[in-house]
Amino acid sequence: MPHLNENYLNLKESYLFSEIAHRTAAYIESHPEKGAQIIRLGIGDVTRPLGKTVLQALHEGVDAMGSTETFMGYGPEQGYEATRNAIAAYYKRNGADIDPKDIFVSDGAKSDTGNITDLFGPGNVILIPDPVYPVYVDTNVMCGNEVTYLEGNAENDFLPMPDPAQHADIIYLCSPNNPTGACYNREQLQIWVNYALKNEAVILFDSAYEAFISDPKLPRSIFSIEGAKKCAIEFCSLSKTAGFTGTRCGYTVVPKELVFRTSAGAELSLNAMWNRRQCTKFNGTSYIVQKGAEMVFSEEGIRECRENIRYYQKNAKVIADTLSRLQIPFFGGIHSPYIWFECPKGMDSWSCFDYLLTNIQVVGTPGAGFGENGRNYFRLTAFGTYEKTAEAMERFEKLFG
Amino acid sequence: MPHLNENYLNLKESYLFSEIAHRTAAYIESHPEKGAQIIRLGIGDVTRPLGKTVLQALHEGVDAMGSTETFMGYGPEQGYEATRNAIAAYYKRNGADIDPKDIFVSDGAKSDTGNITDLFGPGNVILIPDPVYPVYVDTNVMCGNEVTYLEGNAENDFLPMPDPAQHADIIYLCSPNNPTGACYNREQLQIWVNYALKNEAVILFDSAYEAFISDPKLPRSIFSIEGAKKCAIEFCSLSKTAGFTGTRCGYTVVPKELVFRTSAGAELSLNAMWNRRQCTKFNGTSYIVQKGAEMVFSEEGIRECRENIRYYQKNAKVIADTLSRLQIPFFGGIHSPYIWFECPKGMDSWSCFDYLLTNIQVVGTPGAGFGENGRNYFRLTAFGTYEKTAEAMERFEKLFG
Repeated sequence: MPHLNENYLNLKESYLFSEIAHRTAAYIESHPEKGAQIIRLGIGDVTRPLGKTVLQALHEGVDAMGSTETFMGYGPEQGYEATRNAIAAYYKRNGADIDPKDIFVSDGAKSDTGNITDLFGPGNVILIPDPVYPVYVDTNVMCGNEVTYLEGNAENDFLPMPDPAQHADIIYLCSPNNPTGACYNREQLQIWVNYALKNEAVILFDSAYEAFISDPKLPRSIFSIEGAKKCAIEFCSLSKTAGFTGTRCGYTVVPKELVFRTSAGAELSLNAMWNRRQCTKFNGTSYIVQKGAEMVFSEEGIRECRENIRYYQKNAKVIADTLSRLQIPFFGGIHSPYIWFECPKGMDSWSCFDYLLTNIQVVGTPGAGFGENGRNYFRLTAFGTYEKTAEAMERFEKLFG
Repeated sequence: MPHLNENYLNLKESYLFSEIAHRTAAYIESHPEKGAQIIRLGIGDVTRPLGKTVLQALHEGVDAMGSTETFMGYGPEQGYEATRNAIAAYYKRNGADIDPKDIFVSDGAKSDTGNITDLFGPGNVILIPDPVYPVYVDTNVMCGNEVTYLEGNAENDFLPMPDPAQHADIIYLCSPNNPTGACYNREQLQIWVNYALKNEAVILFDSAYEAFISDPKLPRSIFSIEGAKKCAIEFCSLSKTAGFTGTRCGYTVVPKELVFRTSAGAELSLNAMWNRRQCTKFNGTSYIVQKGAEMVFSEEGIRECRENIRYYQKNAKVIADTLSRLQIPFFGGIHSPYIWFECPKGMDSWSCFDYLLTNIQVVGTPGAGFGENGRNYFRLTAFGTYEKTAEAMERFEKLFG
């Protein structure tokens, strides 16, 4: 009988979104007349269509598959050169100089942030923020790794900083953060990089929401911070940048500078290891999708993507302005599609969920789903339509005003 | 400093295809007049364009992304219901009754055959055929697992059978086999299933080449064998079935019946574990690609795919007929795009590579690249054009005739 990976028994049931669906359905069943009024601001998924330039490139990718002369078979596991060059140029524009050979194109950042645990052995001190995107914790639990939490809270603006007395080997950071929307500034990220260099630690930096940063002084990549190439891997994706949540494309930057010694003194390059991992367990991203991805980073593509981002930012502003007027403390909403507010009236996050659902038919996401420190917070997202978002916030203002 | 996964140090350099490229380039440089005559029958990649039905569905998938009303965001990690139902119907037609809920759509069989090691703990007795597709061995080496080889050779027609005296926990089988083209019949697979059931082992069955089976008596899925749902996981892909090597789509069947006890007596379902793995480390296959995949399994799609398969089968026949006339022993070539022949004149596989390259400018794949037992064998593939294949075999016949 096979010995199974029994670490799976230690995973918490991920019931967040199913519980939301369940409570919402139960409410509609007992209040059928309210069903049509429900406004969902809980999803972390985009809703705006892809831009014309990207659509055209996707069609061209499909067309290429239709004739022997242009047919594309297996591509490089690392991604096509044109796609990697386009991503490197995008980095350049955002203040980071990246060798296209350090860029690995994939089917999405979730795959890469999950699969990266393949490169590490047991016994590491792993720091993970709380609250945060649940994949970091779950994938480490699957490996049997212990996790040390970085406490995010109102006192540190949900931007935990390193404790010089605490040693670390691996550090997960997500900025702009999911779910809090909080965004590290340059000085803060420089402190993290310096701490990592001192500890010879690796920072696993998730920049999936970088496109929402509108202040040019804020870092959109950890590689715009001095020294980061010696201590950081960055995960990014076209999901939020370009609306690719259903089209699927991401990329991971593993600098060649990341070389560590093994216990026996041998040198191992994380770039070479990730390359081997991808060549062995992955067969490249769809040619069709990569054709579209390449055009996301063209001048016209970037312009089209920005239009969508601006649409979402307008929604975020409506939410943030309402919360400001109501003097409800909140984070995010400026450089992020997420608004993370303190549950009013001392409610915990699930009570707040029920309260909003039953009183104003607005569905959001209870903060408890993202970690212990989220238990009194609530996440709203800017990914709905403007009309629905504005209406939801009018109801919100009446309820709490 | 992070503790790295030092098992990566035990991986053999995968230099097969780079060495082939290197030797070929060196030959062309020293014999520039011969460059244009080179015929490549080494690649395991398809070359025929996608069928019209699939192309149309892919275009429709792209179009859906272009308007708010039809835009598709995150899809189910397991795949869309329509895609899973289409695959289940295809199984039904091939003699296996599969619950669509047991089917997981992915970006390809290489990802799934690689990632499946996530579900298993250390200490398993793992049987892997030699020769075989190198991913099975490499992904187990990455986990620090020991591997027991199943010896494939001319005596057993490169179809190793179980040794009742040998215990096993996990068994990799690939039929029709890459690289040998050998294909198990029903009786042989039944013996493997019975052996696995007796050992409470799991068979990891790779059926990527099932579409090349033309004899209806041969099993195209392990699930057409009695008892397999209690002991087998099957990996398949649209790469060879429908020419999706560059489009990327695969699927894995993990029956709910696969439940094993942990050391402490708890029960773990492999279906539930794989579901959790995919939901945590994967975000679903591109909607666009799944639209195309769904149509691969429509009546018209199957007809179009068969046309391409027939084209390759005609190539395989040219190769097989030539080898037969020359009385060179070979395997495969009937229910497989691969022809695996014994190197003539007692050559080892790399000498044979050089001999064919320098004498008749035909590039193939040395069997040594697939395991120790391939050292005197050579793989040719049927994925070239008919004209080139026929010309290569004319030269071959002159050389050895």
